[in-house]
Amino acid sequence: MIFNNIGKILLVEAALLVLPAIGAVIYGEDTLISFALTIAALTATGIICTRKKSKKTAIYAKEGYVIVALTWILMSLFGALPFYLSGHIPSFVDALFETISGFTTAGSTILREVESMPKSLLFWRSFTHWIGGMGVLVFVIAIMPKTENSSMHVMRAEVPGPTIGKLVSKLRASARILYGIYCVLTLAEIILLAAGGMPLFDSIVNSLATAGTGGFAVLNNSIEGYNSIYCEMVIAIFMIIFGINFNLYYMVLIGHGKQALKSEELRWFFGIVAGSVLVIAISLISTKHDAATSFRHAFFQVASIISTTGFSTTNFDTWPVIAKAVLVFLTFAGACAGSTCGGFKISRIVILVKSGLRDIKKANNPRSIETVKLDKKSVDENVVKSVSVLFAMYVLIIFASIVVVALDGRDIVTTSTAVLTCINNVGPGLGAVGPYGNYADFSILSKLVLCFDMLAGRLELIPILMLFSPYAWSRKYS
Amino acid sequence: MIFNNIGKILLVEAALLVLPAIGAVIYGEDTLISFALTIAALTATGIICTRKKSKKTAIYAKEGYVIVALTWILMSLFGALPFYLSGHIPSFVDALFETISGFTTAGSTILREVESMPKSLLFWRSFTHWIGGMGVLVFVIAIMPKTENSSMHVMRAEVPGPTIGKLVSKLRASARILYGIYCVLTLAEIILLAAGGMPLFDSIVNSLATAGTGGFAVLNNSIEGYNSIYCEMVIAIFMIIFGINFNLYYMVLIGHGKQALKSEELRWFFGIVAGSVLVIAISLISTKHDAATSFRHAFFQVASIISTTGFSTTNFDTWPVIAKAVLVFLTFAGACAGSTCGGFKISRIVILVKSGLRDIKKANNPRSIETVKLDKKSVDENVVKSVSVLFAMYVLIIFASIVVVALDGRDIVTTSTAVLTCINNVGPGLGAVGPYGNYADFSILSKLVLCFDMLAGRLELIPILMLFSPYAWSRKYS
Repeated sequence: MIFNNIGKILLVEAALLVLPAIGAVIYGEDTLISFALTIAALTATGIICTRKKSKKTAIYAKEGYVIVALTWILMSLFGALPFYLSGHIPSFVDALFETISGFTTAGSTILREVESMPKSLLFWRSFTHWIGGMGVLVFVIAIMPKTENSSMHVMRAEVPGPTIGKLVSKLRASARILYGIYCVLTLAEIILLAAGGMPLFDSIVNSLATAGTGGFAVLNNSIEGYNSIYCEMVIAIFMIIFGINFNLYYMVLIGHGKQALKSEELRWFFGIVAGSVLVIAISLISTKHDAATSFRHAFFQVASIISTTGFSTTNFDTWPVIAKAVLVFLTFAGACAGSTCGGFKISRIVILVKSGLRDIKKANNPRSIETVKLDKKSVDENVVKSVSVLFAMYVLIIFASIVVVALDGRDIVTTSTAVLTCINNVGPGLGAVGPYGNYADFSILSKLVLCFDMLAGRLELIPILMLFSPYAWSRKYS
Repeated sequence: MIFNNIGKILLVEAALLVLPAIGAVIYGEDTLISFALTIAALTATGIICTRKKSKKTAIYAKEGYVIVALTWILMSLFGALPFYLSGHIPSFVDALFETISGFTTAGSTILREVESMPKSLLFWRSFTHWIGGMGVLVFVIAIMPKTENSSMHVMRAEVPGPTIGKLVSKLRASARILYGIYCVLTLAEIILLAAGGMPLFDSIVNSLATAGTGGFAVLNNSIEGYNSIYCEMVIAIFMIIFGINFNLYYMVLIGHGKQALKSEELRWFFGIVAGSVLVIAISLISTKHDAATSFRHAFFQVASIISTTGFSTTNFDTWPVIAKAVLVFLTFAGACAGSTCGGFKISRIVILVKSGLRDIKKANNPRSIETVKLDKKSVDENVVKSVSVLFAMYVLIIFASIVVVALDGRDIVTTSTAVLTCINNVGPGLGAVGPYGNYADFSILSKLVLCFDMLAGRLELIPILMLFSPYAWSRKYS
């Protein structure tokens, strides 16, 4: 039954790969063969997997998690083939790293130099962001004719955030609405960028990367290379837009705009963005730039990091330490739940802060019974607990990964920000993995650990940890 | 009523200061006057505070926390006077930093050079470790003739760890037993060090600093200066001993030695120590030293950091990144609850890891009901929740402090390890605050933030955060 589902998804991936293959034809690139081979491999595997029809149709929680985790790993393994077969990324681990970084929307690259890559590969690289941003399986739910009610379990495992808002009662309908909004917004960005004079190909690729909050760029120096304040601002604003919970857009669509604006997470999000821009801009004004440039760079970089996109318009590795400290915090925070972002999500941070305050109140008066409130509704105590536990697991995995990556013997800033930026799906860190750096020089072991971190971060730990735990494979619960 | 209690404690501090004053007489130092003035000021304030007898005798939770927080702040303010009045630390903020670092057993120093300090001040500096290690108020409970049952609230606020083991039914009796064990162990270390050829004064001062897991040393280069493997090993073993839950010693005393050895936290503690020593030793063997020296330095440094003492026998800032990463993790972990250590405590980390595993199991099978177990007993769900929330608050305070300390514009490793090491009461960090560095060059603002972190870390956040929250001062709950 698990194989059946995964088989379908591999067939979808094959279909998606047709797009870059067409690109290869248009630009007359020799990557066509590697795309064709990958499509063939995917179709073959997909057909084999789907041939055996399973009698079971209901998906239980455990199977949902296993399907999600396996899907992401298999999609990345196959997705890496075009890079590897075409010879443009000669090491398979590197190709895998690049693809996982794509699907998880991290945007960390092992390429020292991207401008010499064939356009079809560049397109595929950013297209993985777009696919991964909204969730591969949500996509499948949206387009598949027959999906069972229990695919809710799949969605729970893949859509980020502490709780899934009940968008509309039918799951498939909500998935379609989400994808509708996603497509319209992406298209809007492409048009605005092209109107601003960016080449059409670059507009498309950068928009796909913005929509998935990924951050793979077409130029070596990311968005800085276009030298256009207009394009920078369009991208910055769209990064913010894609960092907002998509449920709010749906509420606006059905005429509940006022209610959407009252969302507590949204207000915190805007508050944190405004505060961070101010702090960074002031630190830049006092050290490097005039006021206008400072605010421009601060706004772009804050939008880029909090939305976990990772585009850059300047080398923020040379910024004052306070600005860098704010960026590291934003790396961790991420933007809103229910968006395409990575990170820990602002609503979770708000829940944590509020439950901290509640504990202080409770210490005052042990008999007081108070609940943590979000959007004026009480948050279930189990959610509070699992958010706190998730946070702890995040930090412990970060520590453990740093220890392993430290085996490479690189400096501690590079090592720790590489882990932090990968698990939060941001992309660039500080030091040698800063906006002007890349991940090429890490050892294979470190790259695999970072791949694990990217996947664990994107799927919010549970599915990936479960895949490596004995429970998932025991029959006890099934 | 609050003043009444604090008054008593200030009188105790006055009595404690007699010891270094006697030291000043013995060594004929001019610090005698500043000690005398401080004692006079403490006695005067203490008498004024205790004059008004309160009718209320019961202490509620809120008052317990406020008493603890205010006590630590006032004791530090007065305790800083001898340094300041004698002119050996000309800035009052520096003197306060040094004293808070003493009482909280952090051991971070602003002194560039300690060997020129009068011996009576050096003694007082390490004596604050010893007093703060076990808890100022526990000490008061132990020696005061009449204490009410409700002083449990005081003890809860001051003694580290997720739960207080019910040592013996009578609170005063347990406090006395704890102090008895504390004194005997300290004495044992003094004798062993003196027997190994360390000057008696140095033996006493270093033992006091070990017992409190503080880390103020008599020599500029800490324990390295004695150049004695015997002394290093004695101190390392005692750092481990003072990192173990004192309840276990009590259990050994009453003949339950076997049960004590079964303590899950103890096993984790030894496991983590052994694992860390191994990793660090291997990294040192492959880069710097021969096997014996590597293991010696690794064992000493692991014992020093996990017990949050902060002594050093070598400049570990030059160690390979993996060794430094392990040390940073140990900084955060700390040793056992119920010991004199700082840090987050191993039992809390174990609870977090186990509740993480439980959440994975639960994701597998949402209907399963499983509790987190420690020492084969179920941990109360409220404890699990508050441990997770505490962890989150720790990390958020660390982030916030880093942003403020970053205003100084120092490098990011110095900034972040300074905060981490202060909140965990370790002492030395990496970079400019490494074992060969000091805190002298931070701005006043940063020093105050670090003071706050040290206090917040030592009292495990709640009392200090409450002092700054409006709830503590509202009459609503009292």
